[in-house]
Amino acid sequence: MTNVNSLGRHILAEFYGCAWETLNSTEKVKQFMVDAALAAGAEIRESVFHKFSPQGVSGVVVISESHLAIHTWPELGYAAVDVFTCGEKVDPWDACRYLAEKFQAEHITATEMRRGILEAGQKAVVNQ
Amino acid sequence: MTNVNSLGRHILAEFYGCAWETLNSTEKVKQFMVDAALAAGAEIRESVFHKFSPQGVSGVVVISESHLAIHTWPELGYAAVDVFTCGEKVDPWDACRYLAEKFQAEHITATEMRRGILEAGQKAVVNQ
Repeated sequence: MTNVNSLGRHILAEFYGCAWETLNSTEKVKQFMVDAALAAGAEIRESVFHKFSPQGVSGVVVISESHLAIHTWPELGYAAVDVFTCGEKVDPWDACRYLAEKFQAEHITATEMRRGILEAGQKAVVNQ
Repeated sequence: MTNVNSLGRHILAEFYGCAWETLNSTEKVKQFMVDAALAAGAEIRESVFHKFSPQGVSGVVVISESHLAIHTWPELGYAAVDVFTCGEKVDPWDACRYLAEKFQAEHITATEMRRGILEAGQKAVVNQ
């Protein structure tokens, strides 16, 4: 899918039926998210993860191409996953598929939203 | 608006017609995002911002209730803004309205997406 008229593609994915142990492990969640970014060919700039009490992990990986974010509810087996990429180089579905496999979700729903509609002739500078 | 059947509300907002100077200032962007979270009554857990070359800022504020994220394209006067909150305490539109005012966007489009559909009887633990 090409991205002619928008700056970015943002996937909002709902992962249901994941294991409690996985969703409650900051180490695993962070590793999966970082590896998903790399698997999609993104360039990682920053990452931050937070463990909640009594359970749950939130985290974001900021990439040159935008970000990946996750919030987990281990008690429900659920994770809210975002993969937002701009430009043509990185396909957000590559990261989403990687995460779906790693989290072994029983059921997934995912929607792609277009971000930043450009007018004809507008062109973004390539960030470095 | 109540949130009976979903865990979270996620606003995807497009801010067009913002000033270059604002969108390219890491300090201003970070301040607006942090203040927007506080204005909405959210509890900030972590924040991370990155300045790109030649221009642009990306950043995320992780809150107990999920996150706020922004990516700016100063050369286009555009910012992609996300406000994702779970629970009943924080209204994501409060943060979105605060940001719209601070960034003085000429034109905004925004969509609210529901995240994490719960089955009857499921209830999330309140994070601390």
